[in-house]
Amino acid sequence: MKKIPYNSFFDHLNQYVPVSKKEFGDILSYFDERFLDKKEIVMHAGGPCTHIHLVLNGCMHMYFINEKGVERTVQFALENWWLSDFLAFQNKSNTDFNIQAVENTRILSISYEKQEQLLHEFPILERYFRTIYQIAYGASLNKVKHMFGLSKEEIYLHFTEHFPEFAQRVPQYLIASFLGLTPEYVSEIRAKKRS
Amino acid sequence: MKKIPYNSFFDHLNQYVPVSKKEFGDILSYFDERFLDKKEIVMHAGGPCTHIHLVLNGCMHMYFINEKGVERTVQFALENWWLSDFLAFQNKSNTDFNIQAVENTRILSISYEKQEQLLHEFPILERYFRTIYQIAYGASLNKVKHMFGLSKEEIYLHFTEHFPEFAQRVPQYLIASFLGLTPEYVSEIRAKKRS
Repeated sequence: MKKIPYNSFFDHLNQYVPVSKKEFGDILSYFDERFLDKKEIVMHAGGPCTHIHLVLNGCMHMYFINEKGVERTVQFALENWWLSDFLAFQNKSNTDFNIQAVENTRILSISYEKQEQLLHEFPILERYFRTIYQIAYGASLNKVKHMFGLSKEEIYLHFTEHFPEFAQRVPQYLIASFLGLTPEYVSEIRAKKRS
Repeated sequence: MKKIPYNSFFDHLNQYVPVSKKEFGDILSYFDERFLDKKEIVMHAGGPCTHIHLVLNGCMHMYFINEKGVERTVQFALENWWLSDFLAFQNKSNTDFNIQAVENTRILSISYEKQEQLLHEFPILERYFRTIYQIAYGASLNKVKHMFGLSKEEIYLHFTEHFPEFAQRVPQYLIASFLGLTPEYVSEIRAKKRS
């Protein structure tokens, strides 16, 4: 059992499946813990996607560089969120994305092979991952609705209203990138809101 | 065991988890089979999202009506694809989406309660659903990349190249809706491609 407490992850798991303290200790042993400095990159575009990552503290984002050389964020992860190129992870192929720490961030990482061993030993975790992926997939379909159905200003206001924690913690230019807006446009909306 | 053969679904399941013919017969008994006419709606915006649906033959799409009264498709499903508002299904809440048959379509549907019973009886299916949701979520993150990273023409050409079956079967105006393009713009690209 590692020294630092993992209460938040333990509680998060138990929201979905029953896991005892003893089992949780065994489950943790399948993961590697990493401390990332702000801006540190944990998955590199063009390389293999070998791990999925859980945020214990901090924040990460997954992004690609478009043909104009501009970073575009496709997903954020705060505490108890998983982040990876899940398609490349499943297919054991290379990824087009980078994953980078937005703040100093503590993560747990697990490789495909270790996850297979973990799921074999604790099949109840299939149910945990099934549920969180189902929710994440459902949320991504809803995101498409917001991106298609709302004006640019509404997209921004909807996001800050529904995810106030992000709006507080994540730099504006990353939120702009995630919402498909320019940083200048987000500054404009914010100025308008304040006035 | 129902009369009509379900070989394609049986093979699909066995791509992910081992299921015997006998078990498959039991699994099928948890589902309701429905035959939808082209354009028939199986889930209505504003109502509850009570079921997830598997396409046996045919094609469905999930869409919402934006503030201009225009249909916007967020997801298609062909044979062996699941379709639902998975977030509303998980939260047992109302949905903002419609699901409609694009062609005459045969589906299997299962309610939340029946799925819970099914997963309790056949826990191996947690692994099946975990894997397909993981792939679907990963694919949706990749879709964001294409929508953000490519020009309108590239978005269309990428789609038709990577999903030729869709481009053949699905009406152009629905593909345009899915890709966030106007039907007129798609006609233009197609004319340009032919010339």
